Amino acid sequence: MVRGGRARALLRAGALLAAGAALLALGWRLGGAGRADEGAAAGRARGQAVPGRQLPLVFIGGVPRSGTTLMRAMLDAHPDVRCGQETRVVPRVLQMQQHWARSARERTRLEQAGVDKEVLDNAVAAFCLEVIVRHGEAAPRLCNKDPLVLKMGSYVLELFPNAKFIFMVRDGRATVHSIISRKVTITGFDLTSYRQCLSKWNAAAAVMHRECQALGARCLAVQYERLVLRPRETLARVLQFLELPWSERVLHHERYIGRPHGVALSNVERSSDQVVRAVNREALDKWVAHVPADVRADMAELAPMLSRLGYDPWANPPRYAEPEDPAAAAAPAPPDHPLDT
Amino acid sequence: MVRGGRARALLRAGALLAAGAALLALGWRLGGAGRADEGAAAGRARGQAVPGRQLPLVFIGGVPRSGTTLMRAMLDAHPDVRCGQETRVVPRVLQMQQHWARSARERTRLEQAGVDKEVLDNAVAAFCLEVIVRHGEAAPRLCNKDPLVLKMGSYVLELFPNAKFIFMVRDGRATVHSIISRKVTITGFDLTSYRQCLSKWNAAAAVMHRECQALGARCLAVQYERLVLRPRETLARVLQFLELPWSERVLHHERYIGRPHGVALSNVERSSDQVVRAVNREALDKWVAHVPADVRADMAELAPMLSRLGYDPWANPPRYAEPEDPAAAAAPAPPDHPLDT
Repeated sequence: MVRGGRARALLRAGALLAAGAALLALGWRLGGAGRADEGAAAGRARGQAVPGRQLPLVFIGGVPRSGTTLMRAMLDAHPDVRCGQETRVVPRVLQMQQHWARSARERTRLEQAGVDKEVLDNAVAAFCLEVIVRHGEAAPRLCNKDPLVLKMGSYVLELFPNAKFIFMVRDGRATVHSIISRKVTITGFDLTSYRQCLSKWNAAAAVMHRECQALGARCLAVQYERLVLRPRETLARVLQFLELPWSERVLHHERYIGRPHGVALSNVERSSDQVVRAVNREALDKWVAHVPADVRADMAELAPMLSRLGYDPWANPPRYAEPEDPAAAAAPAPPDHPLDT
Repeated sequence: MVRGGRARALLRAGALLAAGAALLALGWRLGGAGRADEGAAAGRARGQAVPGRQLPLVFIGGVPRSGTTLMRAMLDAHPDVRCGQETRVVPRVLQMQQHWARSARERTRLEQAGVDKEVLDNAVAAFCLEVIVRHGEAAPRLCNKDPLVLKMGSYVLELFPNAKFIFMVRDGRATVHSIISRKVTITGFDLTSYRQCLSKWNAAAAVMHRECQALGARCLAVQYERLVLRPRETLARVLQFLELPWSERVLHHERYIGRPHGVALSNVERSSDQVVRAVNREALDKWVAHVPADVRADMAELAPMLSRLGYDPWANPPRYAEPEDPAAAAAPAPPDHPLDT
C-alpha cells in the first residue's frame, strides 16, 4: 500500500513532467521556425504556467513556536514526503509580491511594463519551486515549512492550485512563553512583555485563521496539544487529509533524523534541539507559572483568538485533550521503508 | 545578412532548448523509475542550471537619466532585439539576494537549510528569466533595461555567463539637472540640492564604473553625448560589441514605437515622453544655467567621477564630441524588416 501510494504520486508527477517536456519541444519547434511571436524563448508556449505549479505541495504554517517543526519532522519521517528545513527565502519573495500587489500605483507601473499578474505569478512560482524542490532530497510529495507563508495562503494557492495547507495551532500563552523564554526574535514581538507578545500572537493567529478558513477544504488546522497527546489519531487525520498512506514512521520521527529520506535538520534553527527528541508533553504547561497575573486577568480581551481556537482563556492550564493510550505511540517501530535499505 | 544573424541566434537558442528538453525527459524517466534521489521533481538533473541561463542576454544600465531609455529604444528598433520597459522587479529580487549574500550569518542559515549558492542562484535566475522573457515579445536577442541592475553586474554575470552589459555614461551635471528639474524620485537623492545629488550621482557612477571594469570585455561604456552627437558611429560600435548585424532602424527608433517587434513604451515611465521623439541634442547643455555657482566651484572634488568618465569638471559645458555629418542620421529609412510585413 505504501508503494502503491508512492507509485501513484510518481505517476502524477510524471504526467506533469511529460506535459512540460511536450511544451518545451513545442516552444523549440515554433522558435526554430522563426516565429518569434509564437515561439517562447524559455521553451514554453505563451500563457503557459511554469512547470511544477500543478504539484500537490504541502505547506505547513502557524505562528512560530507552535509545533510547525514537530509536524514537518513527523511528515519528513514519512517515506513519501520531504519537507526539510525552513527555507527563509520563500516567505520573503512572497512578501515582496504582496507588497507590489497591495499598491495600485505599483500594479499600474508593472502592468504598463508588461509585468502583469500572470508574468509575476510565474516568476514568483518559479523562484519558490527552485527553492522548495532543490533545497533537499527529491520525494514524491514535497512540502514547505516556513511558518509565515500561511499568512499568504490564498495567494500561494493561486500559484499552486493543488497545494494543501496545515495550520499548526497552539495555546498562545504557551507560544508566547516559548518565544520569550527562548529569546526567539520575531519582527514586531517585544521579548520583554507577555502582554505585547500575546497581542502580537493574537494578530498573527487571526490572519492565519482567516487564511485557513478562506482555503476551505485545502487547509487543516491541527492543535499542537492534540498532536502531542493523541499523536496516532491526529497524524492519521493529517495523512488522510494529505491523501497519503499511513506509515508508523511518523510516530517515531526521532529515529529518522539525519537519515536518507528522513528528517534533515539545520544546526541553527531554534527548534532543532527539541525535535531530535521523541514526542513528549513537557512543553504543554510550562507557561503557567510565567504569565504575569495582570496579563492573565485581561486574557480574554488581550487574546480573543484563544477561545476562537478552542482554548479556555481562564484555565491555567486548560485540559487540552485526553491522552491516547501511551502503549499505542510507544509500539516498536516497523521495519524501515524498502527504499531506505 | 539580417536574416542570417536572426537564424544564427535562433539556432543558438534552439540548441539550448533542445538540451533543456533532453534534461526534462531524463528527469522524468529517472523519476518514473522510482529513483527519488536521482530523478528531479522539477524535471532537471541535479546540479543542472535553470534552462535559459546560457542565453546571451543584454543588460543596459547606468545612473537614471543617463540615456538608458534612448539606448534600449534604439536596440528595440533593431529587428533581432527586444528590451522592453523597465521591469522594476528584476533589480529588487537581485537586491534581495545581495542582502542575503552580504550577511555571513544569513549565508550560514541558508546553507544549513540546504539553500546553498547554487539553489539560490537558480531561484533568482528563474525569477529574472520569467520576467525578462515574458514581459514582452519573443525575440532572438533579449535585453533588460533596469538601470540599477548594473550595480550588481558581476553577480548577474554569474547567473548569466553569456550576458553582455552596456553602461550608459552621461555628464553628471546634466543627469542631476534632469533628476531635479523633472522631479524624478530616486532613493537617496535630495531633489532640493544640486550638491547632494551630484555627490549621490558620483557614488552611483563609481559603483557602476567599477562593475563595468570588473566585467571586462563583457561591458561596454557608452557616452550619452556621443550617442546623440555621433549616433551612427556609436551604434555601429554597440552592435559590433553585441555581435548583431547593422540595421538602419536603430537610427530611427521613433518610427517603430508601439509597432510589432518595435519599441514598447510604458505610459508611466518618466522617459517615455522624450523617447517618442527622434534623437536630438536638446538635453546636452540645458543644465549649464542651473547648477549653482558654489556647487560649480567645488565640482572636481564633489564629483571626481566626472573627469574619470571623460568630462571636464571646469567646462560649462564641455565640448562633448564633434557632431557626425547630420545627413547620415537623417537619411530616409530603409524598407521595414521582412518580419514586420
